[in-house]
Amino acid sequence: MPVFPRFTALAESLPPTVPFVGPEAQERTRGARFIARLGANESGFGPAPSVIEAMEQQAGLSWRYGDPENHDLRERLGAHLGLAPDRIVVGEGIDGLLGLIVRLIVEPGTPVVTSLGAYPTFNFHVAGFGGRLVGVPYRDDHEDLDGLLAAVKRENAPLVYLSNPDNPMGTWHSAAAISRFAAALPETTLLVLDEAYSETAPVSALPDIAALADMPNVLRFRTFSKAYGLAGQRIGYVFGNRETVSRFDRVRNHFGVNRLGQVAALAAIEDQAWLSHVIALVVASRDQIGDIVRGHGLKPLPSATNFVAIDCGGDGARARTIMDGLVSRGVFIRMPGVAPLNRCIRVSTGPEVEIDIFEQALVEVMAELNGL
Amino acid sequence: MPVFPRFTALAESLPPTVPFVGPEAQERTRGARFIARLGANESGFGPAPSVIEAMEQQAGLSWRYGDPENHDLRERLGAHLGLAPDRIVVGEGIDGLLGLIVRLIVEPGTPVVTSLGAYPTFNFHVAGFGGRLVGVPYRDDHEDLDGLLAAVKRENAPLVYLSNPDNPMGTWHSAAAISRFAAALPETTLLVLDEAYSETAPVSALPDIAALADMPNVLRFRTFSKAYGLAGQRIGYVFGNRETVSRFDRVRNHFGVNRLGQVAALAAIEDQAWLSHVIALVVASRDQIGDIVRGHGLKPLPSATNFVAIDCGGDGARARTIMDGLVSRGVFIRMPGVAPLNRCIRVSTGPEVEIDIFEQALVEVMAELNGL
Repeated sequence: MPVFPRFTALAESLPPTVPFVGPEAQERTRGARFIARLGANESGFGPAPSVIEAMEQQAGLSWRYGDPENHDLRERLGAHLGLAPDRIVVGEGIDGLLGLIVRLIVEPGTPVVTSLGAYPTFNFHVAGFGGRLVGVPYRDDHEDLDGLLAAVKRENAPLVYLSNPDNPMGTWHSAAAISRFAAALPETTLLVLDEAYSETAPVSALPDIAALADMPNVLRFRTFSKAYGLAGQRIGYVFGNRETVSRFDRVRNHFGVNRLGQVAALAAIEDQAWLSHVIALVVASRDQIGDIVRGHGLKPLPSATNFVAIDCGGDGARARTIMDGLVSRGVFIRMPGVAPLNRCIRVSTGPEVEIDIFEQALVEVMAELNGL
Repeated sequence: MPVFPRFTALAESLPPTVPFVGPEAQERTRGARFIARLGANESGFGPAPSVIEAMEQQAGLSWRYGDPENHDLRERLGAHLGLAPDRIVVGEGIDGLLGLIVRLIVEPGTPVVTSLGAYPTFNFHVAGFGGRLVGVPYRDDHEDLDGLLAAVKRENAPLVYLSNPDNPMGTWHSAAAISRFAAALPETTLLVLDEAYSETAPVSALPDIAALADMPNVLRFRTFSKAYGLAGQRIGYVFGNRETVSRFDRVRNHFGVNRLGQVAALAAIEDQAWLSHVIALVVASRDQIGDIVRGHGLKPLPSATNFVAIDCGGDGARARTIMDGLVSRGVFIRMPGVAPLNRCIRVSTGPEVEIDIFEQALVEVMAELNGL
């Protein structure tokens, strides 16, 4: 069968690879369900009961398109952040918004700086628009701010990606360090500051909203997918300088955000008590995971996120063996894809029953690994 | 405040206009809620009770990302259509999928053929990727297949848009005419066949799935937003030639589809009895709208959709006066934006209570218009 001959040269050059293989696909390959779901940094603690109730109440109105302006949600987020609503855009998760900012800046050949082993979906979008990725190694398991800045200047890159707290390592920089990095960037370089894990981070890791809000070259991305427990609803948002933020409206899928997601996110912001409850559970779960793995001689990295990166004390092959052993026992986890980060596995926090399953599986995996 | 200086030239050239102003924005401008929502071709008959129940049951699992492969939904759609699942891609509504196919084919300057006054969101995407829109006038309120074909050949266009049944006029072509059109296209032109309103169309208007399924240059787009009553969930799908369809995976937002939307769409396909019920209601509602407007000397166009285009018997100004009169009375409707289509208003079918509100408002509007 012939191929349609007029896809763009860029489209034809792209590989069929995807950023992540989902757990459902892995289940289909395995022929069995996972018994613990600790691989995608979802919140197994769930959304707030008040959020679930709001969604149940509004399910029958799903025949209506959601408000394409996301007005009420932006108003509420604005009040929460202390920003005017026209400095905020809501999209189909941070992933969707990352695709848009890349589209607005990247053309074939445009250099884009990120860290080697950082978020693959950002890289997917950069490749999808023909950008040239410039990867900077992590330093001591942190994104290397000096290295990123040097690469930006060397390459005259218009776009740099930084996640704080970091995924996949869970580490973080101080608010002061982030602010210094932003201020040191050339005015011709836009900082994508991915703060997906902001809710579980110490306050000292997050620059004041006002501190960066007016800079035309800084955008901050946040989400309801992590601590708020709404990954399935696909609600991310970006905020910053009004003029910069306004560019999203020129290209976004205006009716792309689902209505129940808007409902859920609005209800979620209102329930800060649930958020505090979840954050306490995340902290306890991080500690529990740390205790478990230390008992096997593995080293948990400090984390400001809802997951723990665990140094398995060897190379990528050793970590992969441990991950594969866990996965084969029904425990869905992931690991970083690039050395030296790939000496680690990455385990999401979650309900005790799932952490117990992880613990039992790890006992078996480590026994097997140690030839016992 | 300075503007970030390195958005692409294309991004900087785009206007801030949006394809549609939503009813919620109109409500905010009016300072009052609409009392009838008949402007966006949503299904006021709602999703099936079985669908609402499935959504309620699964709301608590919204902490999970949806399966990025949309596997179960594609399997079910495949069984429904008689196609292998790898010939189907699910996206954030047809709107989202239209953006992707445009991205895969259109570069700055690429000619793209559509009908003058056809779906504005397609045009928005074409403009967003720098394409050059070539508009073909409707003929007798139908999209002009001969005219579209001639324009495609004249412009050597790689992409042509056709909706069948048509929005905003509600008219349709026969399956045979559509198939002939597809076969007559150059192999270097891809047909975007938008069948958003397929469920309410006569069977004779829809080419057999198999008839076009292997053509590398035909893609058919369908949705759960119309007859299935799930506009808010943002679930559209595209199907056709395997190789052509596979290109979407290279650029789509893999985790962009919300999980409850997947749940709802799966449940909706299962409940074909509800779909039949809704279709009967749509037909009755179309007839009722027709009777109402004929009583005022207005002319309803034949419709294969869930709305009725109504020829107001004058020019765009007259139709706009009638629309504005209805809107000011709390009845949300829309009208085509381009002459000569804009002699019409467009009224969605809906529950009798809303059609009654439309009827009463129309009495007042026509009395005012006729100076009574």
